[in-house]
Amino acid sequence: MQIDKLNSILNSAEALILKQGIMSFKISELAKLAKCSNATLYSEFNNKEEIVYTLYLRATKNKVKRITNIVEMDGVSNKDKIIIISMLDIFQSFVKTLNLSILSNLPNNENLSITTKGSCVKEFYKLKEIYDKLWREAIDNKELLSTKEDVIALSYELIIYHKGVIEFINDYNLNKIGWNMTPEMFFEYIVKKINSLDWVDHSTIDYQSTCSLMHNELLTSSFHKTKNSNENVFESEMDI
Amino acid sequence: MQIDKLNSILNSAEALILKQGIMSFKISELAKLAKCSNATLYSEFNNKEEIVYTLYLRATKNKVKRITNIVEMDGVSNKDKIIIISMLDIFQSFVKTLNLSILSNLPNNENLSITTKGSCVKEFYKLKEIYDKLWREAIDNKELLSTKEDVIALSYELIIYHKGVIEFINDYNLNKIGWNMTPEMFFEYIVKKINSLDWVDHSTIDYQSTCSLMHNELLTSSFHKTKNSNENVFESEMDI
Repeated sequence: MQIDKLNSILNSAEALILKQGIMSFKISELAKLAKCSNATLYSEFNNKEEIVYTLYLRATKNKVKRITNIVEMDGVSNKDKIIIISMLDIFQSFVKTLNLSILSNLPNNENLSITTKGSCVKEFYKLKEIYDKLWREAIDNKELLSTKEDVIALSYELIIYHKGVIEFINDYNLNKIGWNMTPEMFFEYIVKKINSLDWVDHSTIDYQSTCSLMHNELLTSSFHKTKNSNENVFESEMDI
Repeated sequence: MQIDKLNSILNSAEALILKQGIMSFKISELAKLAKCSNATLYSEFNNKEEIVYTLYLRATKNKVKRITNIVEMDGVSNKDKIIIISMLDIFQSFVKTLNLSILSNLPNNENLSITTKGSCVKEFYKLKEIYDKLWREAIDNKELLSTKEDVIALSYELIIYHKGVIEFINDYNLNKIGWNMTPEMFFEYIVKKINSLDWVDHSTIDYQSTCSLMHNELLTSSFHKTKNSNENVFESEMDI
C-alpha cells in the first residue's frame, strides 16, 4: 500500500477511535470514512489491534524524527537537548486527545504480527541510541563528571518519571479528584533531576525557550507542511 | 444483576481479553464463555468499553479494600504503611498479565455512562482519603516534621513515579531493548524518596517484610478464599 493511502487510513482511524472508542470502533465504518473497501483494510491489517498498533508505530517513528531534529540543533548543550527531549511527549499529552501511550502494553497480544512488533522495537532501539549518544557526548566533552552508574540510574528515573507524567496527565479519575499539574511544574522537576548529576555548568535552558525551540523543531522538520492537512500525518499528533 | 453473576461475567471477560485482545474480543464469545445470553450482556453493558471499564472499577474497589487492610494493621508506622501501599500495584504488575492501567484514560469516552464514570471517581476519592489520612496522622503524631508543601510535592512525585513504574514494567518495547528493573530496585527508590522528608525516625521496613506483609494482607482479607476460584474475583488479579 502507498504511504499516502496508509496515512490517510490511519488518520481516519484516529478520528473514528476518538469518536467511537478504541474498543468499539467498527472496521466497516473505518472503510467508509477512509473511502476504501473492507477488503483493502483486511489486506493491510489482520484486526483492530494491528490498525491501532500501526498508529502507535507511526507516532514512534514521528518521535524519532522529532528527537533527531533536536539533537541536530546548533548551539544547544547536550544537557539542554536532554531537557528538551524529556518535555516533548509531556507537551504533546497536554494538547492531544488520543493517548497512544496505552499501546505500549499491546505487543504481548497474539493478534499482532511479528513484523509489526519488530518494527516498533526497531524504532525503540533508535530512540535508545540517540539518547545514549547524548549522554555519552556530555561525558566525553567533560560537560558531565558523574559516574556511569549515576548516569544510568538517572536515565531510568527520567524514563519512569516521563511515563508516569503522561499517564498522570491523561488520567481522568486523578483529574476529577483534584490532582493536577502544569507543564512548568514537570519542567522544573526534570531540570532539578538532571541537575542532580555532577555537571561542570549547572545553568540550563528556561521553560519559555524550551517551548519556542519545540515549536521551531516542528516548523523546520522535513515532514511538516501545513497544520491539519490529511497528508501530513507525522505532524497530526502535535500542535503546540 | 447478582454480584456473583456479574463477577463471573467479568472473570470470563478477563480471560477472553487475554486471549483475543482488548479490541478484538467478541461480545458473542463472552456470552458463550460466561454461559449467558447476548441479551443478558447487553442489558448490563452498553458496549465493550463498559465491560472493560467495569473490570477496571472492580480492580479499583479491590485496591481500596487491600489498602484499607494495610491501614488497619497494628504495630506498623504510618511511614511503613505508605511504603507498603506504594508497592502494592508494582508487585501486582510483575505477576499479572492483564494491565488494566491502560483504562485510566478511558473515561473521556462517550461510550461510558455517567454512572460508570462516577462510580470510579468515587473509589478514587476513597483512595485519596485513605492516603491523605496516613500523611496527616504522621504529621499529627509528630513522626513527620516536614512542611505541608513538601509533603504534597512528594505525594505528587510518588504517584507519578508509581504510575510510571507500572507502565515501565508493562512496556514490551522497553523490555525488548534491555530496560529492566527488579521490584527491589523500585522499593529502594520509594524508600529513598519517602526518607527525603524530615522524619523523626528514618528507619523503615525492609523489602522482605514488605513482601510478607502484603501476602498476609491478602490472606486475612475478608474477600479472599482460595486461589484461582471463579467466585473470588477480588483476589483474581493478585497472586504474589
